[in-house]
Amino acid sequence: MPKMIFGAKRKPGMSRDDFGRYWTTTHADLGKQVPGIVRYVVNLAPDLSGSGREMAYDGFAEVWFDSLEAMRAAASTPEQATVLADEPNLFDLPTRFVVIVDEHVIVS
Amino acid sequence: MPKMIFGAKRKPGMSRDDFGRYWTTTHADLGKQVPGIVRYVVNLAPDLSGSGREMAYDGFAEVWFDSLEAMRAAASTPEQATVLADEPNLFDLPTRFVVIVDEHVIVS
Repeated sequence: MPKMIFGAKRKPGMSRDDFGRYWTTTHADLGKQVPGIVRYVVNLAPDLSGSGREMAYDGFAEVWFDSLEAMRAAASTPEQATVLADEPNLFDLPTRFVVIVDEHVIVS
Repeated sequence: MPKMIFGAKRKPGMSRDDFGRYWTTTHADLGKQVPGIVRYVVNLAPDLSGSGREMAYDGFAEVWFDSLEAMRAAASTPEQATVLADEPNLFDLPTRFVVIVDEHVIVS
């Protein structure tokens, strides 16, 4: 089952708590509306050190579709346009990446 | 359950096929030996376009542990040292990142 991996840093000046709260509520609610999504997981980096040390990325989304065709169809929906329009509210856009992958389970 | 997300491009000059084969066999076999791994998934980017177009990353690993303590303990094992020593055989080291995350399931 094909999966999209999205990664980004949070918007400059946004706290890690606000970033996580916004993504898992407002932004996730928009994402859920996109047709064809089979599974959607948000992965958030906690501030483990308490030092505010910067990491390469602050969060990742994983979004599964039944097929590449379904993924491509989703990309051109009005619901996906709404998701994209919300991205400047939480992400540092220059750090944003999306890669389509196949999963290979090694240990389960 | 805490998870590490690792991402990297493949070693310069390595084909996408060789990269995927090496990671899911030789490198994964070393990874499996690291104590405390609960689940390990390798995510590989296929060449969807057939154009050889470069992506931000060629692959990601997700590695779950029961606790942050188990993750930290694993990092200092000889088995993990062996995994690290194998990384130059497949990864473009400057592109490599590791981020520790918490999963939030939005759609399942």
